[in-house]
Amino acid sequence: MPLTVPVLPEGIDPAWLPLEAFRPVGSRRTLIDGSGPLVDTVHGELAHACAQFGGEVIIRGRSDVSSSYDLVLRVADVGDSGDSGDSSDSGPGLGVVGGHGGLDGLGGAGGTGGAGGPGAVGGPSAFGGRGDGGELGADGFVVERTHGITAVTAGGQPGLLYGLFHVVRLGEDAFRDTRTREAHRPATALRMLDHWDNVAVHPVMGQVERGYAGGSLFWRDGIARGEWERVRSYARLLAACGINAVSVNNVNVHETEAHLLTDWIGEVADIAAALRPYGIRTHLSVNFAAPVVLGGLSTADPLDEAVRDWWAGAVRGVYSAIPDFGGFVVKADSEGQPGPFTYGRSHADGANMLAEALAPHGGTVHWRAFVYNHRQDWRDRSTDRARAAYDHFAPLDGKFADNAVLQVKHGPMDFQVREPVSPVLGALPRTRLAVEVQATQEYTGQQRHACWLGPMWSEVLRFRPEGEQRPRVAELAGGGLVAVANVGDDPFWTGHPLAQANLYTFGRLAWHPDADPHRILDEWIALTFPCASERLAAGLRAVLHGSWRTYEKYTAPLGVGFMVQPGHHYGPSVDGYEYSPWGTYHFADRDGIGVDRSAATGTGYAAQYAKPWAELYESAASCPDELLLFFHHVPYGHVLRSGKTVVQHIYDTHFEGVEEAEEARRVWAGLADLAEPAWHARVAERYDEQVRGAREWRDQVNSYFLRKSGIPDGRGRTIY
Amino acid sequence: MPLTVPVLPEGIDPAWLPLEAFRPVGSRRTLIDGSGPLVDTVHGELAHACAQFGGEVIIRGRSDVSSSYDLVLRVADVGDSGDSGDSSDSGPGLGVVGGHGGLDGLGGAGGTGGAGGPGAVGGPSAFGGRGDGGELGADGFVVERTHGITAVTAGGQPGLLYGLFHVVRLGEDAFRDTRTREAHRPATALRMLDHWDNVAVHPVMGQVERGYAGGSLFWRDGIARGEWERVRSYARLLAACGINAVSVNNVNVHETEAHLLTDWIGEVADIAAALRPYGIRTHLSVNFAAPVVLGGLSTADPLDEAVRDWWAGAVRGVYSAIPDFGGFVVKADSEGQPGPFTYGRSHADGANMLAEALAPHGGTVHWRAFVYNHRQDWRDRSTDRARAAYDHFAPLDGKFADNAVLQVKHGPMDFQVREPVSPVLGALPRTRLAVEVQATQEYTGQQRHACWLGPMWSEVLRFRPEGEQRPRVAELAGGGLVAVANVGDDPFWTGHPLAQANLYTFGRLAWHPDADPHRILDEWIALTFPCASERLAAGLRAVLHGSWRTYEKYTAPLGVGFMVQPGHHYGPSVDGYEYSPWGTYHFADRDGIGVDRSAATGTGYAAQYAKPWAELYESAASCPDELLLFFHHVPYGHVLRSGKTVVQHIYDTHFEGVEEAEEARRVWAGLADLAEPAWHARVAERYDEQVRGAREWRDQVNSYFLRKSGIPDGRGRTIY
Repeated sequence: MPLTVPVLPEGIDPAWLPLEAFRPVGSRRTLIDGSGPLVDTVHGELAHACAQFGGEVIIRGRSDVSSSYDLVLRVADVGDSGDSGDSSDSGPGLGVVGGHGGLDGLGGAGGTGGAGGPGAVGGPSAFGGRGDGGELGADGFVVERTHGITAVTAGGQPGLLYGLFHVVRLGEDAFRDTRTREAHRPATALRMLDHWDNVAVHPVMGQVERGYAGGSLFWRDGIARGEWERVRSYARLLAACGINAVSVNNVNVHETEAHLLTDWIGEVADIAAALRPYGIRTHLSVNFAAPVVLGGLSTADPLDEAVRDWWAGAVRGVYSAIPDFGGFVVKADSEGQPGPFTYGRSHADGANMLAEALAPHGGTVHWRAFVYNHRQDWRDRSTDRARAAYDHFAPLDGKFADNAVLQVKHGPMDFQVREPVSPVLGALPRTRLAVEVQATQEYTGQQRHACWLGPMWSEVLRFRPEGEQRPRVAELAGGGLVAVANVGDDPFWTGHPLAQANLYTFGRLAWHPDADPHRILDEWIALTFPCASERLAAGLRAVLHGSWRTYEKYTAPLGVGFMVQPGHHYGPSVDGYEYSPWGTYHFADRDGIGVDRSAATGTGYAAQYAKPWAELYESAASCPDELLLFFHHVPYGHVLRSGKTVVQHIYDTHFEGVEEAEEARRVWAGLADLAEPAWHARVAERYDEQVRGAREWRDQVNSYFLRKSGIPDGRGRTIY
Repeated sequence: MPLTVPVLPEGIDPAWLPLEAFRPVGSRRTLIDGSGPLVDTVHGELAHACAQFGGEVIIRGRSDVSSSYDLVLRVADVGDSGDSGDSSDSGPGLGVVGGHGGLDGLGGAGGTGGAGGPGAVGGPSAFGGRGDGGELGADGFVVERTHGITAVTAGGQPGLLYGLFHVVRLGEDAFRDTRTREAHRPATALRMLDHWDNVAVHPVMGQVERGYAGGSLFWRDGIARGEWERVRSYARLLAACGINAVSVNNVNVHETEAHLLTDWIGEVADIAAALRPYGIRTHLSVNFAAPVVLGGLSTADPLDEAVRDWWAGAVRGVYSAIPDFGGFVVKADSEGQPGPFTYGRSHADGANMLAEALAPHGGTVHWRAFVYNHRQDWRDRSTDRARAAYDHFAPLDGKFADNAVLQVKHGPMDFQVREPVSPVLGALPRTRLAVEVQATQEYTGQQRHACWLGPMWSEVLRFRPEGEQRPRVAELAGGGLVAVANVGDDPFWTGHPLAQANLYTFGRLAWHPDADPHRILDEWIALTFPCASERLAAGLRAVLHGSWRTYEKYTAPLGVGFMVQPGHHYGPSVDGYEYSPWGTYHFADRDGIGVDRSAATGTGYAAQYAKPWAELYESAASCPDELLLFFHHVPYGHVLRSGKTVVQHIYDTHFEGVEEAEEARRVWAGLADLAEPAWHARVAERYDEQVRGAREWRDQVNSYFLRKSGIPDGRGRTIY
């Protein structure tokens, strides 16, 4: 039976799934060969599209099968892929599927590039060794065109769903006889969003911590808000970009939210039921002290038998409510959250206790590596927050259970616009790692500024922690790729409509980290505006391609980070964190600026990297300009590799950043006739704020450094 | 009938009215001659004390009058002082009362000083011209000792209440035959506390805006909290230090609070009923836009007839609920509050409209002069917030109605630890002025730091805006003295128990602005600790006398102000307001610091003063050190009148301030055996925080200036 496609509530933006995007499949004849709940979802999608555009969809085995088809969708091994929640690598395979083309069609940087639009076959994939000639896995699929029929063969039910959305992405191209065979499978089995949603509105952090898109999609006033059509529509959007897991509550688990684990698990089960038809498993953030807070025990010591029993029982309760439950997300001993340190235990002890409870049910614990001293004394220059995750976790390599994943922020600090890649990612070869990025723009303009993060994430995922010829971050992240979600109950989902591109890009990069992010952006444009003129597409590229660099230019310079207003993190405050306990300093004085993290004279952080990077970062002469102040304290007159002095670079980039924001606003204003009026107006309003904010950043940062350094701008521009 | 004395709820500190303080009167025989509600209050107080200590109190006219008395309390003109709410200057007088001693007994700075303890007769009062040989007014009283009887003769019922509390303050001294005659009357008819209490908890500002002593005494969860014994106990404390008016809600009148004026006036009436027996009239902060917000009118234009009618009707409603209602407090066109500017009207227009509505009922409007542009551009150095109140209001002199009082903050900015006296106070000779000080320690340590403000307030009140031989501020403040309240539902009333001294000192200074504040502090000590040893008293003096200067030393230097954390205003942030719209800058760069407010080269603020002050402040050479950076931008090497450079002064005072805070903590710790344990512990805990905070101030401020100036400490101490 086809599953009914969710009804997008009135006034809610369809994002990258407008009805029009389904015209190519909806106007054709499709045969579906398979059965199971996700096949029903695929069936429902096609039935809905066909009802609109005049096509037809047929399930094999029905008596009236008699026609020829434009599209055939089949699951390779129907009998053994009935578990909609099984999206793991170890699912039943499809035998040999490759041989003709490379995996995926996004053209990685190392690929042939340039050729064709979205869906064109790129060069050999970085992950070809795992796909070509190997197993597709439950999520994978092959698309080929033979005898006038486009055939999608999926490794499992989830693969059929992803195959369908792939065909939708391809549009009319899917039905051209010139198509060559493509095999697709995700680089990682877990492509996850972490929602930092509070069940009850937090008095300081609000409904969604670091959320800039309204209230929670899931929760309101202390209970599941029950807008299931909206949640199902959300699940559909996520599936269409490849995401298959969602953690539904904030990693800071307050008292109300702690109860989701036990007495309120029914609320979570309701959400899981809404997400499941789109192949999305539900995860939960839990409070490490739950045995005390909820269970009335006197301890949460992970080596205490009663504690372990309590967790085992709690997990049984979770799985009886949610049989395909994904697992836990844990922020422990971090920024005030409880953890194993309280009991003199290691983080491996803590994670393994939860892993043990989850293992019988196939669940995973995602243990966050974001552990540092947030009660640091700014006077003490020997403590370096950047070192903390490595110092805490590198010694634990090999000690984590198989179903424990260490979830590592991509940089050593906290989602700044520019950070080096976390050295933790190269330091635990015997530990399953997940990489966490932040789609919600906490430090990158809070969805009031356009800042498309695709290029940043791509740089991270391509980084080779151990040096040339060694694996990329994406390959090391066997435990998954995770983004902190940027959505809420806003009609445009993400507050700033252009921030939808971040969510889409994350999903697609999680599937194919080697993809050229600009190709992904083109996909997003083509799906979101299926009738877009080339002028609109060119305009969207113009305002988004460089937007991350633009944001970097007008904010904290040269990797030094954290010149934001404390607390809410919006807008400039050069000294905002300079004398605080948070470990986020720049040490600017009248002579220079930057943090000496060298091994020779500084905190030693640079030595946490493998040799090639350690050597590169150790010296101010070889350190990349964009990270110079992260690694070195230099005089304002220090000459960058670019040939400019540090202070002139600060002035220049801040003037340029504002000019680029102004130009983006101008470009967007010129597209008013091409975009839907409400969509255009919302973006235009955000650009006004972005330009205002960029000017504030420019003037505060430039004035700060002029007042401190006394060095005038070489070009004589106005600094206050 | 004696009024029952309120029962202090369990666990609530008696502050300066412990039972023991009533032993001298409670163990004697007292005759009361008079009648009326406040006489009933006096009667109740004495009956309560006598029940405890074995004395006796008799009302003249009762059949069993037969004994001789130690104390006689009488109202001079019983027949014409029955209105407990009538505490105005124009009440019935007492004919000639003076001639023997000066007014009051606190020994003004210009008096003979030195002589005796609390209650000793000082030299000629600055206000002698209004008291000696003139009328006492309803609030005044005479105390004399003849033939072994101490007699208090009051001008009206309130005077009898104040006379009783005066006798309590005098203790056994009241009954010594060596006493000479004293006449007492307040310098101003209105001695008021403004509560910035919200009825509903404000999401950012909390229950009490800028409150540091728990929740509101009056309101909780949107209604009057109904703890009438507590409110009556509070009224009793206020009467005992001379306060006779309370405004019961925040000057920022949010939507909920706006309704107090109309549909919720019954709640206000309940509070008024609890305050009334102690001679305290109730006032209300109102929203200038009430005709729109509450009345459904389309305008709040003060010259619109319908608006004026609406206010007249609203005021009638108020007076039918509260016949002795005091009047309105209004914050208009200030920090986002609505006001007459919206309609192109002047603040005189706005104030006079409300004055007109109140006049038939004897009410007064207190119109706050705190009007400035809080959306200033920090890049614009020509706008000067300090100028704003003068610029707005000086041109309106003579245009305000008789029952309109312009309520002026004592300094031009906002209750910083050091500001010059507001030039507004010398600029409106034909306008009734009230001076507003801040008992709640918003910028002076938030009742976590001990900071006794008596000396600061005293300096302000003695300042002569027009120069030598001209009136003091206290004499110009005919409209009253007002303090923003520092109390809440905290068991010690004020959070920091030592902050009780601020509230007491304010009340006593409002009564007698010429008093030596150190004498007032001695009174407070003697009342609060009636059995105190001299060691405890000396310890309290040691930790409080210099505490304001100590706080000044370790915070923002030399009058420049506002180096606080934005928003909550606690703790240092040297650049916290430097690039903000609030108009509170210091302009520190690598060469120097300060705001040029001279007429010659700066904003011209100095010229708002009368000639002697304008000349003094105009030049950095003559400007008092403690205000130098308020008036001038100088190099760090500028030599102060003290002989130190500015930067060395900064270093020295910050080290000294911390040492003084540490010494105060040490002194307090040494008094553990002398004070009630909970009282001592609370203060000790606050001192820990004060010392921590003072060190943080010291290190951040010193580091900031070392980093910026590059000039090392002359004494080689550690700066980070």
